[in-house]
Amino acid sequence: MIDLHLIGIGTGNPDHLTRQAEAAMNAADLILLPRKGQAKSDLIDLRRTLCATVLTKPVRVVEFDLPVRADSSDYLAAVGDWHDAIAATWAAQIARHLPHGGRLALLVWGDPSLYDSTLRIAERLQTGGMAMRVHVVPGITSLQALTAAHAIPLNTLGAPIVVTTGRRLRDDGWPEAADTIAVMLDGACAFTTLDPEAVLIWWGAYLGMAHQALIAGPLAEAGPQIVTRRAALRAEHGWIMDTYLLRRERSAA
Amino acid sequence: MIDLHLIGIGTGNPDHLTRQAEAAMNAADLILLPRKGQAKSDLIDLRRTLCATVLTKPVRVVEFDLPVRADSSDYLAAVGDWHDAIAATWAAQIARHLPHGGRLALLVWGDPSLYDSTLRIAERLQTGGMAMRVHVVPGITSLQALTAAHAIPLNTLGAPIVVTTGRRLRDDGWPEAADTIAVMLDGACAFTTLDPEAVLIWWGAYLGMAHQALIAGPLAEAGPQIVTRRAALRAEHGWIMDTYLLRRERSAA
Ligand SMILES: C[S@@+](CC[C@H](N)C(=O)[O-])C[C@H]1O[C@@H](n2cnc3c(N)ncnc32)[C@H](O)[C@@H]1O
Ligand SMILES: C[S@@+](CC[C@H](N)C(=O)[O-])C[C@H]1O[C@@H](n2cnc3c(N)ncnc32)[C@H](O)[C@@H]1O
Repeated sequence: MIDLHLIGIGTGNPDHLTRQAEAAMNAADLILLPRKGQAKSDLIDLRRTLCATVLTKPVRVVEFDLPVRADSSDYLAAVGDWHDAIAATWAAQIARHLPHGGRLALLVWGDPSLYDSTLRIAERLQTGGMAMRVHVVPGITSLQALTAAHAIPLNTLGAPIVVTTGRRLRDDGWPEAADTIAVMLDGACAFTTLDPEAVLIWWGAYLGMAHQALIAGPLAEAGPQIVTRRAALRAEHGWIMDTYLLRRERSAA
Repeated sequence: MIDLHLIGIGTGNPDHLTRQAEAAMNAADLILLPRKGQAKSDLIDLRRTLCATVLTKPVRVVEFDLPVRADSSDYLAAVGDWHDAIAATWAAQIARHLPHGGRLALLVWGDPSLYDSTLRIAERLQTGGMAMRVHVVPGITSLQALTAAHAIPLNTLGAPIVVTTGRRLRDDGWPEAADTIAVMLDGACAFTTLDPEAVLIWWGAYLGMAHQALIAGPLAEAGPQIVTRRAALRAEHGWIMDTYLLRRERSAA
């Protein structure tokens, strides 16, 4: 039997780690660290540092290469194939390093529940017949890192919020359900497709990390600043992760 | 100058605390602990335990009584008055215990950004002329405690989610923007007002605490179980905090 612990580690700041996460890391028989290729090598360095900082016991840490996602016009199908390939890679690592079962830990960026595929990949292994229990340790999400950095609430008083992706914002426009939208996974500044009238934006990149960047203000002014800054940061670091909150003032209508 | 640190403490499990939260608590000159009346005395006990567990330095901890919210048919006005009254109470505590300024810490349930009024109350003091910088330490929210306890993702692949309150779900029905809804602040099981056809629910009460309760399943069966269980738990403990996720399967239409 494999006990899989998916441990939310927050968004790059080792101080985001909870006591529960530290305990789960130290109780593991094996920690698997995925390598995602050269461009994001900062991210594996960060996980290595985390292990070095937090582990007080001799836990085995094994790195492995993640398969690469195929480019495809059919996004959902490409993601499905990619998750199958990752599940196969996990299975191979487990067969090799935990052949008699035990506690396996994976360090998940932010919180394992939020736009992360680790739970779906674990489900594939269970469906495929592996005897596996899944345990989740919650972690600080990038949205919480965003609102904390700007010292703002996510919602207005008693009001709903929508959490969505850049792709959906671009395709569907402002969702009627809420005056506040939190946007993740946006590689192309979908906020530029909105009417900026009476909309405020709070943006953050590399949240929790040493080179954290923040911009806030009316979308009409802050939007173009973000586009420029984002391109410059991305060129400088080779990669970028950013997220933002949009709030529209209720029209009198 | 007051440096106010709003510290997210997670939802009742001391192991939800992050390293950043522990450091901020230990660096404070004063920690204010609000008392909310007899019914929720477990919650102040919990904060006392947290301070006892985490503080490694002689930080001053002062308890004070929170004003009570007036019952009113005008919800937003009543909440506004209540926040004014809380701001006045904070100001009095600050004048008394930190007359020359310093680092003031408040322990906020879950994360300070999510359906919490602490940031809005701080803003009142700033608007009222108090020299105050606000810093936020993110914490594990009850939604993350919910998804972790059930080991489920919040969103389906690349899809949006709506976070809302029981009141809004009851008044507005299922929001068109998403097939997943997270519901908080629901004192009256608003899910009973929905058509349960093809809807799944994951419910949790006292998440992270010793008497955590979980129910999941198709809304048609799990809904009535939750109503019964919730009433029994509430009678037993004198109070309840619960939250839930609803997911509807996409209709073929
Ligand atoms: C695959 S999702 C994973 C989210 C993660 N599970 C969480 O809880 O935040 C990646 C997206 O999260 C956001 N993100 C993650 N880390 C971030 C950071 N440090 N700064 C800004 N945005 C971040 C970005 O929108 C990015 O496209
Ligand atoms: C005023 S809001 C505060 C939310 C908090 N800031 C957070 O991040 O979770 C209170 C609501 O949060 C949810 N909640 C908070 N703690 C909870 C717990 N331990 N178990 C279940 N629900 C909880 C309930 O829906 C409750 O009505």
